[in-house]
Amino acid sequence: MNEFDLIAQFFTRAPRRPEIVLGVGDDAALLAPEPGTHLVVSTDTLIEGVHFAAGAPAFDVGYKALAVNVSDLAAMAARPIGFLLNLTLPQADAAWLGGFRDGLFALADSLDVDLIGGDTVRGPLAVTITAWGASPAGTAVRRSGARPGDRIYVSGRLGEAALGFLSRSGAITLSAEARDAVRARLDRPAPRLHEGLALRGLASAMIDISDGLVADLGHILEASAVGAEVDLHRLPLSDTYKGAFATLGYDPAIGFGDDYELCFTVPPDRGDALAGMASQFACGFHDIGEIVAAPGLILRDGGKIYTAGRGGYDHFRS
Amino acid sequence: MNEFDLIAQFFTRAPRRPEIVLGVGDDAALLAPEPGTHLVVSTDTLIEGVHFAAGAPAFDVGYKALAVNVSDLAAMAARPIGFLLNLTLPQADAAWLGGFRDGLFALADSLDVDLIGGDTVRGPLAVTITAWGASPAGTAVRRSGARPGDRIYVSGRLGEAALGFLSRSGAITLSAEARDAVRARLDRPAPRLHEGLALRGLASAMIDISDGLVADLGHILEASAVGAEVDLHRLPLSDTYKGAFATLGYDPAIGFGDDYELCFTVPPDRGDALAGMASQFACGFHDIGEIVAAPGLILRDGGKIYTAGRGGYDHFRS
Repeated sequence: MNEFDLIAQFFTRAPRRPEIVLGVGDDAALLAPEPGTHLVVSTDTLIEGVHFAAGAPAFDVGYKALAVNVSDLAAMAARPIGFLLNLTLPQADAAWLGGFRDGLFALADSLDVDLIGGDTVRGPLAVTITAWGASPAGTAVRRSGARPGDRIYVSGRLGEAALGFLSRSGAITLSAEARDAVRARLDRPAPRLHEGLALRGLASAMIDISDGLVADLGHILEASAVGAEVDLHRLPLSDTYKGAFATLGYDPAIGFGDDYELCFTVPPDRGDALAGMASQFACGFHDIGEIVAAPGLILRDGGKIYTAGRGGYDHFRS
Repeated sequence: MNEFDLIAQFFTRAPRRPEIVLGVGDDAALLAPEPGTHLVVSTDTLIEGVHFAAGAPAFDVGYKALAVNVSDLAAMAARPIGFLLNLTLPQADAAWLGGFRDGLFALADSLDVDLIGGDTVRGPLAVTITAWGASPAGTAVRRSGARPGDRIYVSGRLGEAALGFLSRSGAITLSAEARDAVRARLDRPAPRLHEGLALRGLASAMIDISDGLVADLGHILEASAVGAEVDLHRLPLSDTYKGAFATLGYDPAIGFGDDYELCFTVPPDRGDALAGMASQFACGFHDIGEIVAAPGLILRDGGKIYTAGRGGYDHFRS
């Protein structure tokens, strides 16, 4: 199988969205932006042995590579349109490629986004996806908009991906059902796209939790030049997490990352509007604290100040 | 140096182009497309040991990674605006990063394009760049527009990058001056951006020569459902190439690639217009043959049909 056969066999499909004028197969892809919109662009690289285990199911690798990018667009309150795939492969293995393609397109189809181009090269297994979305000009939710008095929310549950990782490594033991659920959260995270879109006009700042709450909320605080107080007792933890809390403590829920939940801030006068729409979303939006003027992130554990054991994933930590 | 320091120290600059609403530092970048334009998007991955030698100067790696993407936009007759950088590094080496950044921004500044985002991860050295451009709706030059009777042109000289590679491997010996010139063509190719833009409305099909003339003209023929006859005696070869012709023959000029010259077709009634503007460009546009209705690529070497020894670079050749 040569490079062009590989692309033709696994990755060439006619684009379905009207914004895509020309997809896979030329020097570049062509997009026709809708008037009055901004393009929103995000990219992530996943490396075997770093972002996914050697031997991980190809379906999951394809699914997650797209999911983490769509999660970034969701965190801007942007609607995804299409994506580019850069695939570095040690060899052209049809079984692996078929699984990868199935996982990738399973999520792409569910979100109605098109693969519009990319590049395929030989080398150590790695996947880069670059996703495009659109949002009406001026509506994208940045990290920099949090103001003192805003309430801080997270969607869903925190620490589920950490449970998946810890159950796989043998650090904790779970029932078969709980184990499968948390591993699915680690391997095939559901980007909070509809939630992110619904938060347009409500959230003052937003980020997705890829590196852990402490690190990612920290990015909002830095970009907004504010601080925060978070009440750890209000963290949304699953029953599975609570059952292992004596072993885990708070660190996996706030420091592991890979949750792909949204963390966002809402001005006090928009709290009622948020409450009014929250019931549409099964994951729930959970108030965990408040933005304050003084810089720094204070984590309260009852009457005590909690010091986190780990501050998010950093690829180049010394 | 952590991941965020690395980005802040080496890769964070305020965007200069008005289309860029938000650059490096949020979940995604924001672009405001000009009304009536299409966005043109291209991406390439360069792997150490495949696309550049282990130990290659970091400046050259940064320069070339952007050059090959801009070359794709040039081949669509699109003007570049910005790019994303995905950098996979074995370690955060400040000297390497400084050199890489200098090479990257040297070309970016000369083309007036902005770095708008990306991702930095740890792993085997690899660089993915995704470049955006714009073109007025309907003016992008695709691979699929060649018609029988169109003349086939290439810009500049073919086989210079091959000479650079062969001189480095010791397969040929050149004067110091000639050697430096051809290695510069290999290591720091100049994308034919102004030439590509000037061919808007003149070229019926266009591609950049990354995999060699035979392979890349082959893509035009396939996309356009036509054939071609090329006269090898008309290939634009440098005096250096001609001096080594007895050793080289035609294969390096048509099969090696990495030239990043443009290959394009022009309808016969546009030949005068092409001739009228060609004098603006020092590289020259060289008529090498004609598009024909019968599929296949015929290479004529005087009265003989030439069979190429190598059909372009293919990462997954069995």
